[in-house]
Amino acid sequence: MAVAVIFVASCGDSAVKDKVRLQAVAETPANAETLSSPDGKLTMQFYVSKDGVPVYSLNYGDTPAVLPSAMGYELRGSIKANNVVFTGDGGVEKLDEDPCYMFDRDFKITGTERNSYDGTWEPVWGEESIIRENWNELLVHLTQGDSDRCLDIRFRLFDTGLGFRYEFPAGHALGHFVIKEEMSDFTMPGDITAWWIPGDFDTQEYLFTESRLSEISEKYKDIKFGNASLMPFSNTGVQTSILLKSDEGLYLNIHEAALVNYPCMHLDVKGSTLSSVLTPDAQGWKGYIQCPGKSPWRSIEVTPTATAMLESRQILNLNDPCALEDVSWIHPVKFVGVWWEMIAGKSNWSYTDDYETIDLDSFDYSKAKPHGRHGANNENVRRYIDFAAKHGFDAVLVEGWNTGWEEWVNISKDYVFDFVTPYPDYDIEALNEYARSKGVKIIMHHETSSSVRNYERHLEEAYKLMNKYGNDAVKSGYVGDILPHGEYHYSQWIVNHYLYCVTEAARHHIMVDAHEAVRPTGLCRTYPNLIGNESARGNEFQAAGGNPPSHTAILPFTRLNGGPMDYTPGLFEQDLSTFCDNGSKVLATITNQLALYVTLYSPLQMAADLPEHYERFMDAFQFIKDVPVDWSESHYLLAEPYRYIVAARKDKKSEDWYVGGITDDQKRDFEFALDFLTPGKTYHATIYADAPDADYIDNPQAYTITRKDVTSEDVFKITAARGGGFAISIKE
Amino acid sequence: MAVAVIFVASCGDSAVKDKVRLQAVAETPANAETLSSPDGKLTMQFYVSKDGVPVYSLNYGDTPAVLPSAMGYELRGSIKANNVVFTGDGGVEKLDEDPCYMFDRDFKITGTERNSYDGTWEPVWGEESIIRENWNELLVHLTQGDSDRCLDIRFRLFDTGLGFRYEFPAGHALGHFVIKEEMSDFTMPGDITAWWIPGDFDTQEYLFTESRLSEISEKYKDIKFGNASLMPFSNTGVQTSILLKSDEGLYLNIHEAALVNYPCMHLDVKGSTLSSVLTPDAQGWKGYIQCPGKSPWRSIEVTPTATAMLESRQILNLNDPCALEDVSWIHPVKFVGVWWEMIAGKSNWSYTDDYETIDLDSFDYSKAKPHGRHGANNENVRRYIDFAAKHGFDAVLVEGWNTGWEEWVNISKDYVFDFVTPYPDYDIEALNEYARSKGVKIIMHHETSSSVRNYERHLEEAYKLMNKYGNDAVKSGYVGDILPHGEYHYSQWIVNHYLYCVTEAARHHIMVDAHEAVRPTGLCRTYPNLIGNESARGNEFQAAGGNPPSHTAILPFTRLNGGPMDYTPGLFEQDLSTFCDNGSKVLATITNQLALYVTLYSPLQMAADLPEHYERFMDAFQFIKDVPVDWSESHYLLAEPYRYIVAARKDKKSEDWYVGGITDDQKRDFEFALDFLTPGKTYHATIYADAPDADYIDNPQAYTITRKDVTSEDVFKITAARGGGFAISIKE
Repeated sequence: MAVAVIFVASCGDSAVKDKVRLQAVAETPANAETLSSPDGKLTMQFYVSKDGVPVYSLNYGDTPAVLPSAMGYELRGSIKANNVVFTGDGGVEKLDEDPCYMFDRDFKITGTERNSYDGTWEPVWGEESIIRENWNELLVHLTQGDSDRCLDIRFRLFDTGLGFRYEFPAGHALGHFVIKEEMSDFTMPGDITAWWIPGDFDTQEYLFTESRLSEISEKYKDIKFGNASLMPFSNTGVQTSILLKSDEGLYLNIHEAALVNYPCMHLDVKGSTLSSVLTPDAQGWKGYIQCPGKSPWRSIEVTPTATAMLESRQILNLNDPCALEDVSWIHPVKFVGVWWEMIAGKSNWSYTDDYETIDLDSFDYSKAKPHGRHGANNENVRRYIDFAAKHGFDAVLVEGWNTGWEEWVNISKDYVFDFVTPYPDYDIEALNEYARSKGVKIIMHHETSSSVRNYERHLEEAYKLMNKYGNDAVKSGYVGDILPHGEYHYSQWIVNHYLYCVTEAARHHIMVDAHEAVRPTGLCRTYPNLIGNESARGNEFQAAGGNPPSHTAILPFTRLNGGPMDYTPGLFEQDLSTFCDNGSKVLATITNQLALYVTLYSPLQMAADLPEHYERFMDAFQFIKDVPVDWSESHYLLAEPYRYIVAARKDKKSEDWYVGGITDDQKRDFEFALDFLTPGKTYHATIYADAPDADYIDNPQAYTITRKDVTSEDVFKITAARGGGFAISIKE
Repeated sequence: MAVAVIFVASCGDSAVKDKVRLQAVAETPANAETLSSPDGKLTMQFYVSKDGVPVYSLNYGDTPAVLPSAMGYELRGSIKANNVVFTGDGGVEKLDEDPCYMFDRDFKITGTERNSYDGTWEPVWGEESIIRENWNELLVHLTQGDSDRCLDIRFRLFDTGLGFRYEFPAGHALGHFVIKEEMSDFTMPGDITAWWIPGDFDTQEYLFTESRLSEISEKYKDIKFGNASLMPFSNTGVQTSILLKSDEGLYLNIHEAALVNYPCMHLDVKGSTLSSVLTPDAQGWKGYIQCPGKSPWRSIEVTPTATAMLESRQILNLNDPCALEDVSWIHPVKFVGVWWEMIAGKSNWSYTDDYETIDLDSFDYSKAKPHGRHGANNENVRRYIDFAAKHGFDAVLVEGWNTGWEEWVNISKDYVFDFVTPYPDYDIEALNEYARSKGVKIIMHHETSSSVRNYERHLEEAYKLMNKYGNDAVKSGYVGDILPHGEYHYSQWIVNHYLYCVTEAARHHIMVDAHEAVRPTGLCRTYPNLIGNESARGNEFQAAGGNPPSHTAILPFTRLNGGPMDYTPGLFEQDLSTFCDNGSKVLATITNQLALYVTLYSPLQMAADLPEHYERFMDAFQFIKDVPVDWSESHYLLAEPYRYIVAARKDKKSEDWYVGGITDDQKRDFEFALDFLTPGKTYHATIYADAPDADYIDNPQAYTITRKDVTSEDVFKITAARGGGFAISIKE
């Protein structure tokens, strides 16, 4: 078999074999800078080793959270673009003038600055109306040797953890430079437990694995590599956001914040050290920086409890404030959609089989014989609009409305969609008018097939079409390998593209929900029209083998740390074979799916199932109709990663509260106080719970609905079935 | 020294070592298809060898022009995108499901079709008003083995040579496929003489070398590789269009026509066989094809004389007819420009040195201290507008009018220009109004710095700005390495970009002159708003070492075969040190530079020098003022490649004729009849000739101007100095 593409990670070796860095972290420094969190519980130490390597460490009280870890970069040497040499066999080499060099040693501190901040800000949408941002900061100025190569490292210590970023000031030697690899280490306090997915330059659609760090390479053998686009780089590679738990009971989360104009970071694990691996470009170089420049924030959250981890807003707080002047057009969305029927296999995105090839400029769809399975047809879409209107949903997502779906993915087809031409059986004007008349919007769908230049060429016209019909939200997708070939979904070039689409959307007052895009890093604070991403394995995989119930009990600790996820919960019919030719099962009870509307925070929530499935369970469906998507307060009452989560949230627009609880494949009893309610008030609670004999495999549709009055004095006891949960609306 | 980028050509090996192909061309075929040119002088033979390899050959009478040469492709195997394997050291391999396979053997002919065409067409602009297109065609249908993999080869035989292309019909097995390499051979009749430049995926800016094919690798050692972007691939690689001359006196030219949605072709020379090498993408794959698809035409022109080669219109005739309905807005252009002063080093494109870094969104140019050497300032531009108006030029090119020139090339800067923001000392509105009031247009300049995504993002606004000010022509540039990194100037991805800019320009009624873009292949017939390219080493290199006079005596045989060149002739001041700090010399006499307006056909002609240099030689300048840029007839009276050219052309708009002659570094006597003039008429001829003691090095500014009456009976004798020439206007 021929080898098409080879990528071998080499950075990990540097961390292990490089004596200078190993010695640096073993030193007892003569002088070290220290920084404390506002509450004093976290302390960071920073020093430059004898060989000039920058080293940081983090303690929670006396307990180590991050052992001394080296920092820095390896950079490309200056390039002479036209240095050509012919080898003996007639081949050609282009030579760098200078070799790559280490930018992680020979530093000295030339100055430091300290700062503090304590304030609050109000997100446009979120888990709460107001967020406190409180940190102490240390900015270190470094110069390398006798050169004029300068590096700043900015540390911000919150009560929830540490953030640091590299800054490259202008006016010094670096100017414009190229990153060969970032060398940021995160040395954990031992061979601790982690919840992780494989490092991969193209996809995040994995189930999580719980294991010790030393078990990762062994566990790789069990991982199914089956995505339409993937590029793992090492059998010890992991992605961020990653959750860990030390043997002393500290929860740690490593992620990045404010990923802008830089490649996305992964981690390679050697021993108990996790080392940064940036996503390369087509040539293997990692990033191109112009001074003044900065890396994203590298974030290590440290909390004593799991619920405190879920309540940390550190990633958002590391991002810049909102950059949009007018946010009045941004709003959360609850929607249904012509989607699940295609994912499950009941209908198609495409319209016809009557073609040899599809050239969008010349293929005449009006003459093609429809295959009769096109989901986005006039009648079906009107049915969904009626359903949405009847049950108070804001919008209907329609996938497969536009031409091109007959041949679109992983065939290197550049001009794959035009984003403006509907199929013959999708009357775009009439359907938008029908929706409008019913008080419902249509959510636009832009599957790009990762042909990103094609998408950018059509972006203006595509957004204008949305403006014409009042579609103020778009779900975009990047299924398949990126074009131009050689780039990855998370390389700097493509990270730039995703943000370009968001800022262009903002110009058009359009909200974006980007699937298969780079995982979010809190940019929704700066660009609140980025109301969602998928960028993880979502509920759609229930149609392709299922997601074990532990999956949604780990996502809030990991994937959701950077921003909300369009998980598309609410599947009531677990047995897909009852309505299409698909033997896959939804691995969750109905009440588990209800609970997700509370436990998996998102301003964009889909009732994913088919209307006819909801119509069989209208009493349970009531919870989905009631549950808000925007909150003034959120409390995580009980949680352990990968096991269970119980959350309570207050509706931003009323005095109502909603509680949701989920468990993994263990039946579980929960007990929690309602002391988040306003004392002295009586509320009407409706409790959706697993029936006593419910089970996510054997009896997933068995639930009970109970009504009772409650006050802040009450304590709830409730049992969740295996793969089950509970959902409670508590109304004034 | 570290190696940054390695590319080793492997296709040449296939042609040499591959026994099947070697045997195929050595056979005496039992059955062969033959095709004759309309005049019967050229005959082509095609057969499929015993092993099923397609083979063609071409004869001129009894003289071989192309010896039996094999054809076909090597294709990528079908890809399973998610086949991941971890190697022992923790690295990763992604495997093709199937290996690459040969698509050049095991074919059988399933059918043939024959066709003929004889017609004429009128170019919007050109060397003549009417062009005859006359060919005989053979279309061969092939199927590979027992598969459904089909290949068509279409041969068109003109009196001037052969064209062939591959076609991939829809409805068969190929569907969407990937090219590993095209394997089209062109076996010359021996180790013959060629005029060539190195094969290079990024630049064509080379001087030509005259040598036998066997001497190419030796001559490579003398080549200066110094471009801002370059990627040669082999020390026996050459570019097209390449001119050759057999020992029997046949002139041959190999090039391609209609390069659309395909990578540009180079040739690798092994023995006397030239084999196609396509430009790769970032991963090394060559092209992505969707059936029905086709390759560009591979063209081999064969003429008995050099002048017949210059008169061949085969490349244009292989292109599709004009695709634009309305061409009324397209017209040739004669212009001057704020340009040479920057190229020579007298002034700058940039505006200021008062910056640490330039971020176009935030840098405040109005506060920056100008360095005082900005060429495109209000006063200077008005001076050029006055000069253009006074002397009847259509337009003034202005380079350096827009912000960003302080830091722009080969620093991987994505957002390098915005194409709409002028410098503080360029009043875009006032200058365009001033030009308009003087009956002159401003030619827009879009230097992209090869940041092609950035250009496309700004294209609509940039073209709209041009429409606003009535700038109907743009000179674009692609200096430096292409972004995204890994792509080359001539890869399929970027070839697609250049044409996109032309078709988008056509929507805006804008004409395009693209520098550093892929060399033209006759697409100006289909898109006549593509009025020029540079895409070769132009007159600007007189400021960087000079172009020996042989250079313009080979360009019409090679580079101009695919389309006109914006060579920017007309340099009168050869000694750059007289006006700036540059010791380079223009290696041509004044009359040589005048002659170029006739010998180097272009609908877009610049009077390149500074006004003050023309003002010293107003009598010679008169020729440039007079010479038209659009012709109804053209005759090449005398020519030998790399030595001399004498051409006579008739103005499309009058009865006037213009004659131009150039020589290389040899003094030369020319004698030619004026029998192209209309008999019985008397014309007034003005003859601009080298003075008897003129010399391109020692005395380049010595010329004589003689006036005499002439008729069609006259015979001219005229001597050109070394590096000299002559120019004659013959007016009614």
